[in-house]
Amino acid sequence: MSLGLSLFLLNTGCFAKKIKAESVFFNNSIKEDATSAVLHRILDAGDKPISEIKFEKGTYHFYPDKGLEQFCYISNHNDVVIKTAFPIFNMKNLVIDGQGSTFIFHGKMIPFLIDMSQNITLKNLNIDWEIPFHSEGLVVSSDLKNRTFDLKISDAYPYEIRNEQLYFIKESYEHNLGQAILYDPERKAIAYDTESYTPLTLYHHLPKSEGVVKNSTNYKYKLDPIAPSQRVIGREFRLSVKEIEPGLIRIFNHGKKIPPVGKILVCKGEQHLNRLAPAIRLTGTYGFKATNVNIHHAGGMGVIAENSADLILDNVNVTPSHGRMVSTTADATHFVGCRGKVELKNCTFNNQLDDATNVHGTYQEVIDLLGENTIGVRMGHFQQQGFVIGKTNDTIGFVRLSKSFFPYDKLTIKSTKRFNSRYQIITFNEALPKNLEPGDLIENLSGYPEVLVENCNISRNRARGLLLSSPKETIIRNNFFSTEMEALLIPVESGHWYESGNGSNITVENNVFQDCNHSGYDRGVIRFVTDDDNENIAFNNIKIKGNTFNHFDNLVLEIANTNNLEFSNNTISLSKTFPKLFNQDCAIMVKSSKNIEFKNNTYKGEAPLILETEKDMPKLTFN
Amino acid sequence: MSLGLSLFLLNTGCFAKKIKAESVFFNNSIKEDATSAVLHRILDAGDKPISEIKFEKGTYHFYPDKGLEQFCYISNHNDVVIKTAFPIFNMKNLVIDGQGSTFIFHGKMIPFLIDMSQNITLKNLNIDWEIPFHSEGLVVSSDLKNRTFDLKISDAYPYEIRNEQLYFIKESYEHNLGQAILYDPERKAIAYDTESYTPLTLYHHLPKSEGVVKNSTNYKYKLDPIAPSQRVIGREFRLSVKEIEPGLIRIFNHGKKIPPVGKILVCKGEQHLNRLAPAIRLTGTYGFKATNVNIHHAGGMGVIAENSADLILDNVNVTPSHGRMVSTTADATHFVGCRGKVELKNCTFNNQLDDATNVHGTYQEVIDLLGENTIGVRMGHFQQQGFVIGKTNDTIGFVRLSKSFFPYDKLTIKSTKRFNSRYQIITFNEALPKNLEPGDLIENLSGYPEVLVENCNISRNRARGLLLSSPKETIIRNNFFSTEMEALLIPVESGHWYESGNGSNITVENNVFQDCNHSGYDRGVIRFVTDDDNENIAFNNIKIKGNTFNHFDNLVLEIANTNNLEFSNNTISLSKTFPKLFNQDCAIMVKSSKNIEFKNNTYKGEAPLILETEKDMPKLTFN
Repeated sequence: MSLGLSLFLLNTGCFAKKIKAESVFFNNSIKEDATSAVLHRILDAGDKPISEIKFEKGTYHFYPDKGLEQFCYISNHNDVVIKTAFPIFNMKNLVIDGQGSTFIFHGKMIPFLIDMSQNITLKNLNIDWEIPFHSEGLVVSSDLKNRTFDLKISDAYPYEIRNEQLYFIKESYEHNLGQAILYDPERKAIAYDTESYTPLTLYHHLPKSEGVVKNSTNYKYKLDPIAPSQRVIGREFRLSVKEIEPGLIRIFNHGKKIPPVGKILVCKGEQHLNRLAPAIRLTGTYGFKATNVNIHHAGGMGVIAENSADLILDNVNVTPSHGRMVSTTADATHFVGCRGKVELKNCTFNNQLDDATNVHGTYQEVIDLLGENTIGVRMGHFQQQGFVIGKTNDTIGFVRLSKSFFPYDKLTIKSTKRFNSRYQIITFNEALPKNLEPGDLIENLSGYPEVLVENCNISRNRARGLLLSSPKETIIRNNFFSTEMEALLIPVESGHWYESGNGSNITVENNVFQDCNHSGYDRGVIRFVTDDDNENIAFNNIKIKGNTFNHFDNLVLEIANTNNLEFSNNTISLSKTFPKLFNQDCAIMVKSSKNIEFKNNTYKGEAPLILETEKDMPKLTFN
Repeated sequence: MSLGLSLFLLNTGCFAKKIKAESVFFNNSIKEDATSAVLHRILDAGDKPISEIKFEKGTYHFYPDKGLEQFCYISNHNDVVIKTAFPIFNMKNLVIDGQGSTFIFHGKMIPFLIDMSQNITLKNLNIDWEIPFHSEGLVVSSDLKNRTFDLKISDAYPYEIRNEQLYFIKESYEHNLGQAILYDPERKAIAYDTESYTPLTLYHHLPKSEGVVKNSTNYKYKLDPIAPSQRVIGREFRLSVKEIEPGLIRIFNHGKKIPPVGKILVCKGEQHLNRLAPAIRLTGTYGFKATNVNIHHAGGMGVIAENSADLILDNVNVTPSHGRMVSTTADATHFVGCRGKVELKNCTFNNQLDDATNVHGTYQEVIDLLGENTIGVRMGHFQQQGFVIGKTNDTIGFVRLSKSFFPYDKLTIKSTKRFNSRYQIITFNEALPKNLEPGDLIENLSGYPEVLVENCNISRNRARGLLLSSPKETIIRNNFFSTEMEALLIPVESGHWYESGNGSNITVENNVFQDCNHSGYDRGVIRFVTDDDNENIAFNNIKIKGNTFNHFDNLVLEIANTNNLEFSNNTISLSKTFPKLFNQDCAIMVKSSKNIEFKNNTYKGEAPLILETEKDMPKLTFN
């Protein structure tokens, strides 16, 4: 039973027919709205197979009005009703070659929706949106006495004020001042110390009304406090705005520091609404290559891949266009439950509003034991709803994180049934573990890839560089990082996003880390962390060697819950790019770890202490 | 190509297997949440066919948490992601017998989701919701000088105030003071003259911002100004509220008359959000019977049937429970594109917030001529999105309403493709009409049913009694009507809901019409009307005989664009239940009509003139 897949898949995926696949060519005559022409040809691919779709070099617009509509559960996004002109469903050995063309999308579209396909190549094209899903305004003045500041908003960002709230109006979409951050237009990067100023304090909390609380607490099942229907309860707008003149907006009652004049305030609205139109979405696809592709914008991630394998991005560049501060409004790339290889080579990931990449699985909570070999599981985060953990014969680990970060038992999948976006039933080939209890988590041990990130420029974006949660071999080599949070975050995270996997077998070599963590977080440039606060080992076999840390602040490396880490031949120096934010920090902090070795490193920084070790650990020496 | 249907349909609909269907019995042990048990058995029906599902008499709760999730386009509702425990898909000869049980639903569920099935019977059950989708408050005081009034809200309607706006909090749902109306608790019916007081003036208009207008007007395609993304533009809240004490809310800045103390204000929030959970939803189903079914509530319609046939409701009662003023929040029943027979017998349709029934097709706008026999069509109303006009070999009429209400040509369907909720492509067996132009409408002439409404009580509800748009034989007999708007509305409506069909061959006999149209509309109790203002004939062969109009006001019958109408043996009297609202009206108005005959009627009313005929029509006499 495959609930939720469309019959359409059956009708176009006619691999059985032995008709020779043809090369299809589109010229500029369809440029005003290429959707119908492209879509109709792709939908005919069952009868008339396609090997290649080529475009005459040019600028092509794609509108949703005549696009193919799909309801999609997308990991780390909203579940959306979305249009596409490129439904690449059950296709094989297809090359889409823009020959340098620019595709401009309008409104709620997913440019490339790729499902259950094999060996798909995208090349030589630029993806952009006519009207972006985020908005920008220049801080032109501020009044520290009255605690207001004024934003100059250009015609590129049409807006309206309703009941003293600012709404930016897009094509069949709008957003408010939610998830705001400051950009420094001179550096075209996230502003130094932005956390002192942003996000804007858009809401304040209300005392929850008695009847509402009773209503919630009486409910039979677990409620998700951050799900869209729940998160609106118990809060109201605190901020208010007033139009001083057309295009000039004064903002009142901001509760953090007043943003400095000259910075650009970027906002994208509320998280539960703003992740809806990624540029490239892959599911169940084995073999995908993108080369010479520029993703200038997306209302969500640049590339989001789920349950796919062997994904290569070579010279894929996420960069803003038209002088915008922002490229994609969420991660540049993101890989959930993928396997085989994930390679990011020669890429630029700039100015996106979330991580450059994040490689992980999902933890799903066991809530029902249904007989000898069947369980009911609940998805933890509302934006991972609908994600199916794996396929027949995948190995599932059973985890109780309070006891160990590693599975206490492993079974293999017989079948999965998605009853709804939160609740699925999984049947195993084997009997359930005897000690299995509701509340335990499962993760797919077959659903982690080998990762290579090489020769990439990762900078100017909000959030992290790379989040690495695969236990398979991970190589991070010859990259340049300048991110406002951690350059590399190696987490075990089970409490918010339910992103599974403990990074192991990671090599980080010959990278440059330039002034990361400059927005206000007191964290290591490279950081190992678990959100289950215990001393168990989570991370294994880590090599950090030959890297250059040119850092404005002290803290470079945070190690926790790690076994067998070598930090060698690295150079740490003080950049003086910005004033230090945390001048009492040491350079390296180690806790709950063992077999940690420092050798042949050079420290030219100015921390009061280079290496701080938690007191019940054996003493370590920085060399 | 069947875009949007689920593979699931293929897997459970195994008519080919010749296993004997069994009777399934559920007892009270599953009453706390019957969803999983019922759902799992129904999903197994492919392998283990079911002839009957019986319930031990009792009260059963159904929660969405483990229900089957579907994304549904529902005519005259929102497009919704909804859960169900009864996915009756591709089933045949099934009886569901509650044996007097009450099914209580929680949150966003569709109790019975019936698709592509045959001969389905529901009987002996009561449908209700734990927490209703609407809210009620008693007007306990008012201040005419300061133009405020106070609502007393019971614990049954938990609420919260955010930024001076009132939100009623339900199970994973909330609504504001939108679509409010007054109920008279003594009559348990819509209050006399409520239109003077309601709806509340929740919004006022803003001057649209320049950039926003430019953005919209530059858009390549037609925008729908009432679609959810558009209707929020250019307006803001005008009303504000303040909590005087817990459960007592003062409402400020209402722009109509201040509601009288003692009346109950009922509200359900905004139309584009509030039609999401009908009680029974039928699509593509041939043969459906409901008997002894009480629908006490639904967050939408009681029964919504699309493209189905032979539907019999016998002793189906839409009535409120628990002292609530409101039963369903939209129509009691509604039939779109249905065929065969629709019969409503011995039913009570009380206190629903829209019509008792509405029988119609859809007009779809031709926007693209795509070759010799293919057109692209656009759905007009956002809540009819996704509706598919018909099936292979159905006869489609081409209509240009400015010229005639009847089709100028007819073709038959070869295939339909739903590309998206607004845009579909229809291919015909024949060549397109030579005079076809974009802007013309199509309707499905095969998609109208014979209608019988007999021995029903239709009263206490908002809006009309019956909307009749089928040209097939329609009989309305022995019913009692007391509705706040027209008892019978026979329209041609192409400008808002795009509901197609011109009622003809209608017999209205031996009904009682008691004090209809009492809420403030100056309209006939029975009303023929077209929204294309011309003199062409739309309605044909109408008999109105042996009815009793006991009316508080003057106007009883409005005839327009009608040919061949007999009004005979009817009695019209003055009820004096309420003061007259329009005492200068005549009793009967006729325009743009011919062959209208009045005979053997008795007039005991007090209108200044019984019959008013438009001046260029031949003179008529009331007899």
